[in-house]
Amino acid sequence: MGRMTSRRRVLRLADGVRTTRPDTLTVEEPLEIRVDGQSLAVIMRTPGHDIELAAGFCLTEGVVRSMDAIGTIRQCGSEDGEMNLIEVSLSPGVVFDDQRLRRNLMASAACGLCGRASLEALATQASPVTSNLRVRREVLESLPERLLTAQESFGRTGALHASGLFDPDGRLRVCREDVGRHNAVDKVVGRMALDGLRTEDAILMVSGRTSFEILQKAAVARIPIVCAISGPTSLAIETARAFNITLINFLRGSGMNIASCPQRVGGR
Amino acid sequence: MGRMTSRRRVLRLADGVRTTRPDTLTVEEPLEIRVDGQSLAVIMRTPGHDIELAAGFCLTEGVVRSMDAIGTIRQCGSEDGEMNLIEVSLSPGVVFDDQRLRRNLMASAACGLCGRASLEALATQASPVTSNLRVRREVLESLPERLLTAQESFGRTGALHASGLFDPDGRLRVCREDVGRHNAVDKVVGRMALDGLRTEDAILMVSGRTSFEILQKAAVARIPIVCAISGPTSLAIETARAFNITLINFLRGSGMNIASCPQRVGGR
Repeated sequence: MGRMTSRRRVLRLADGVRTTRPDTLTVEEPLEIRVDGQSLAVIMRTPGHDIELAAGFCLTEGVVRSMDAIGTIRQCGSEDGEMNLIEVSLSPGVVFDDQRLRRNLMASAACGLCGRASLEALATQASPVTSNLRVRREVLESLPERLLTAQESFGRTGALHASGLFDPDGRLRVCREDVGRHNAVDKVVGRMALDGLRTEDAILMVSGRTSFEILQKAAVARIPIVCAISGPTSLAIETARAFNITLINFLRGSGMNIASCPQRVGGR
Repeated sequence: MGRMTSRRRVLRLADGVRTTRPDTLTVEEPLEIRVDGQSLAVIMRTPGHDIELAAGFCLTEGVVRSMDAIGTIRQCGSEDGEMNLIEVSLSPGVVFDDQRLRRNLMASAACGLCGRASLEALATQASPVTSNLRVRREVLESLPERLLTAQESFGRTGALHASGLFDPDGRLRVCREDVGRHNAVDKVVGRMALDGLRTEDAILMVSGRTSFEILQKAAVARIPIVCAISGPTSLAIETARAFNITLINFLRGSGMNIASCPQRVGGR
């Protein structure tokens, strides 16, 4: 994990006094994902868990419906040791159509692109999450601290987002960090998928805020509860309601805002 | 500006007590940008200043080299009043080639995609910023508070990023907010470009952290000083150094970390 952070000398100016000192930074590098030889995307990400990132990205962005559609995922290096290329090969008979999702969105755009169009495009990938999961309030209240504890790098660079998947009793299953909020979610989703584990009874906790794309990824990954320390956007709430996801924001101390599906939150 | 935020009823749970109350949220909606009829991108953004966003996006993403290359920018609505489509038409003789930047990056990828490849791709768009701007430390220290004051919506939703352009004496030229960090920068850059104003003597202050793409946009927009409240990534520092931009992070109270080009920061 050494490559997630690096050190650079910076000039520190405090109360007018100049000193030079090494600063620990989040590493950010481009990762290219190719599917059956075609370039799918170049993602700016923090190196580490790149196979998981690619698996999660392919799932949550709708390239594949399940891991069964993926034959192999291979990380390729260059002569100078950079490992910034992932080659995904699909299973026999599975066809890569990178224009499909885009067409779905564009088709809706003919009648005026809006939040509804984004939801309709997502509905071609995902259906409402039907999980009967019920979680005690105290468990939810404990998640921010548990996520923070799991973030090995937190506090050292100030530039890493975290994403954690928890059991109904608050036990951490997997935690991943990245310079990108979406990447951190794709990494935990990818880890679960690679292990063939169910997410229908999982709680996703993210360190930041929740926008449409976080809820989109949760919907595709079938995660029934999404928690965040910061606020939601309007479209995040609409997506959570449309896909039957419990969305909890401003989860701090003993307080939280529940924007959708509160029946999954139990009392004492 | 009313559409930047909206209100939704959410369930508030605090110390075990449930109440229902309206919550103010950042609005997030997709915006499609078309250039000469071709779809360039669908951006999730906070509505408002969309023409500026499109102008800034076209500039900083390298669609055009200058505003001279743009003929008109038109915002189009649908029957239900959504204004989520921007039509950019290029000036006569200017050709839209959306594969160019991607090809630049991919060409470098042949020898192993890495941070260097990203910098090389950027070098086809921008050259080092040669500004002789020099700013007093006290002015820099005052920017976080000035930006906060300018953020009309800040503190109401917890989900808005801000970006401000300041004069060398700390006077605010333009401040924009968006659910997306990059969008907020594109909006201020677009505003300056639409007004035909120089940015060679401007200071960009962002509310969050600085990743590669923020520095990329600053380099293309010729902004000599970039300040942020949070930390930088490794590639942000490399980009700042390669393009002669003064990058200042952790700008809080009377302290700051200067990662590059400190000669632009003056003493008392």
